[in-house]
Amino acid sequence: MFKKILIANRGEIAVRIIRACREMNIETVAVYSEADRESLHVELADEAVCIGPGDVRKSYLNVNNILSATILTGAEAIHPGFGFLSENSKFARICEECNIKFIGPDYDAIDSMGNKSNAIALMKKHNVPVVPGSEGSLSCFDECKAVAKEIGYPVMIKAAHGGGGRGIRIVWDPIELEKEFYNAKAEAQAAFGNGELYLEKYVVEPRHIEIQILADSFGNVVHLGERDCSIQRRNQKVIEEAPSPSLSKILRKKMGEAAVNAAKAVGYKNAGTVEFLVDKFDNFYFIEMNTRIQVEHGITEMITGVDIVKEQLKIAAGLPLEFKQRDVEIKGHAIECRINAEDPQNDFRPSPGKIEKLFMPGGPGIRVDSGVYEGYTISPFYDSMIGKLITYGKDREEAISRMRRALGEFVIQGVENNVDFQYRLINEKEFLDGKYHTGFINSL
Amino acid sequence: MFKKILIANRGEIAVRIIRACREMNIETVAVYSEADRESLHVELADEAVCIGPGDVRKSYLNVNNILSATILTGAEAIHPGFGFLSENSKFARICEECNIKFIGPDYDAIDSMGNKSNAIALMKKHNVPVVPGSEGSLSCFDECKAVAKEIGYPVMIKAAHGGGGRGIRIVWDPIELEKEFYNAKAEAQAAFGNGELYLEKYVVEPRHIEIQILADSFGNVVHLGERDCSIQRRNQKVIEEAPSPSLSKILRKKMGEAAVNAAKAVGYKNAGTVEFLVDKFDNFYFIEMNTRIQVEHGITEMITGVDIVKEQLKIAAGLPLEFKQRDVEIKGHAIECRINAEDPQNDFRPSPGKIEKLFMPGGPGIRVDSGVYEGYTISPFYDSMIGKLITYGKDREEAISRMRRALGEFVIQGVENNVDFQYRLINEKEFLDGKYHTGFINSL
Repeated sequence: MFKKILIANRGEIAVRIIRACREMNIETVAVYSEADRESLHVELADEAVCIGPGDVRKSYLNVNNILSATILTGAEAIHPGFGFLSENSKFARICEECNIKFIGPDYDAIDSMGNKSNAIALMKKHNVPVVPGSEGSLSCFDECKAVAKEIGYPVMIKAAHGGGGRGIRIVWDPIELEKEFYNAKAEAQAAFGNGELYLEKYVVEPRHIEIQILADSFGNVVHLGERDCSIQRRNQKVIEEAPSPSLSKILRKKMGEAAVNAAKAVGYKNAGTVEFLVDKFDNFYFIEMNTRIQVEHGITEMITGVDIVKEQLKIAAGLPLEFKQRDVEIKGHAIECRINAEDPQNDFRPSPGKIEKLFMPGGPGIRVDSGVYEGYTISPFYDSMIGKLITYGKDREEAISRMRRALGEFVIQGVENNVDFQYRLINEKEFLDGKYHTGFINSL
Repeated sequence: MFKKILIANRGEIAVRIIRACREMNIETVAVYSEADRESLHVELADEAVCIGPGDVRKSYLNVNNILSATILTGAEAIHPGFGFLSENSKFARICEECNIKFIGPDYDAIDSMGNKSNAIALMKKHNVPVVPGSEGSLSCFDECKAVAKEIGYPVMIKAAHGGGGRGIRIVWDPIELEKEFYNAKAEAQAAFGNGELYLEKYVVEPRHIEIQILADSFGNVVHLGERDCSIQRRNQKVIEEAPSPSLSKILRKKMGEAAVNAAKAVGYKNAGTVEFLVDKFDNFYFIEMNTRIQVEHGITEMITGVDIVKEQLKIAAGLPLEFKQRDVEIKGHAIECRINAEDPQNDFRPSPGKIEKLFMPGGPGIRVDSGVYEGYTISPFYDSMIGKLITYGKDREEAISRMRRALGEFVIQGVENNVDFQYRLINEKEFLDGKYHTGFINSL
């Protein structure tokens, strides 16, 4: 196992990684920008190195300074966390060249998944379902008709050179296809000077469901079940839960297998997440793979008992997974609400500033992963996360009742925050019924 | 289910009960002394009633004021927590007479277990093992010899009218019995003017192991496994863990069954704890039953997923247990360190005062049950508990590593505390090996 690692990140994920290291007797080196001197991750790490000013390009994205800090402190490996350099294959490659272990997949696996159209082509090749559609542009209506028939309705006709929602037609019924094809063509021609169209299956009321996988260097790949991340605002996840309230046992198994296949297709090592859209009819489609730890990994930890960050460290150190797929047992239910310093009354504008008063909920079934403390000043340079509030219960009902209770206990003074907004969300009927899709927040 | 209950307690256990109620949509009434105006339980409850000055006899033990508060607020039931009125059968009886549900066993069950010598006689009758010994005083050496032979060595000869450790002889070998009998007799005669002796089995290197039980009003009794509470200082528990690191599967089963029998013997209802001593040879002996929730109930909740306080409320409301013994599944390992405002450098003298700075650990596998917050002033009137730090892991090793990590994160400024002392304890070889008994702290 490593003796010392450097954490090329900040905030709660840096704290999370430090906690795992401490539990494994691994020394930690924090890096921080000048704006982050007073940060919790700096306080908790064994060593801390300043790597530049507040601007992320000059600090947390500053490869030279991060590598210098690593070499200077004698750290053997770098954990990139999420965001910043975590999915930068060049950085992973430079680490390898410097003989520093990058705690994540090999750079070619990052590359394979990083290029989205390549990734989709690769998945298709390996029988991982992707959103079906035409191969490139449609030559004529007859081709459109044939493809639509093949992939099934509803379908979406899209302008090949379009954007901004123009030239898009959703067709539910075959008898309307021809009319809509020519309408879309005319609109595309008028709007973009080019009438080329392509066809894609329209994913109805999609749910965003992702599968957590772990893969070691010996070809062992297991999945830890799914997370339902359908509750989003502008493509940002707001609430996540595991297991998904809307997934059948059969679908869970199928998607788990597809995720394992996806990982195997790129020779994936370490923790990763395979993201799918699931439609109203329980068809599921690969959309992308995140080749790093996710913000929402904690809910999977709660229901499986697996410490994913520790697994990352063990895998990176060349150890084999100590369990097999059949050993993974899902017990109970976990929900995460992201608590941000932002103003729901003001289009969720970030609300940096000093946290004058802070009381975090506690007691049974509560986990808070946070990088802040009372008196801490949230910097305008970075994301506005105050913490991740995770509740666990023997079933979904208990996890929800604990979330309601915990949000009620949370006290944050000095910055605007979304605690009341989250409280509202978890009390909505669609949420309580577990029947929601990615349009949930917009529909409120 | 109850609509509203009153909590006749303070501090973290009052907070714990409020949390359970909130998750069950039960309204809560806190009571508080004048010294507790700023307390967390007052802040978190739906209503709060002042019941007297700081002196517990005039507030938290003031039955009239507590009953008045209950009637005034329309609460249907009283949860007594632990300590204070929780094992006062008269109080339980008065509640019944006032048509207020006492959340605990019937007053006669409290009585049966409250009188220790009666309880032991009752247990003997129901084949629950108790510490073997002579029935009253020994008439002569021959009787002594016969009883010693029957109960097995080592035995302890004790002065019937003794005290302070005088007139006590531990005998390991039958050939020494006669000599020690007469020595003890002479010493007792000299010291107490009375040479009467009695004999008891000497419990060698005893472990304090208790079984959590739940019993409903329909005769269903289940146990939730054991807690090892052997790490004590002056008979006060300091660290508890579940499961016990030293209990075999067979012994666990036997003790669980004995605890269920003990509860059935008194027609017990609600949550209770049957305490045993376990000797070096794995003999176990009933010592007493606590007819209330225990401080350390949380570690059992962590490994079973059962919310014991919610079960108390459901049982008191007349609902049947929703699970059977075979449904109780123990998963993982939990440890609790009691964090107190006390000075280990000064004979653990309580250290009341204002908590100037407070950072409680968080992240995976951490639960903190506390009644304090940053800026709170710990009153000299009450116990000095800051909180209960509970860690959970997939196994004992992980639970310990998390405790080490969590104690390292804890920041308490303004009052002396035992965080460093606890850190020392969990890093002692005996603790790490799981081989300790009630003499552990004294042996340091």
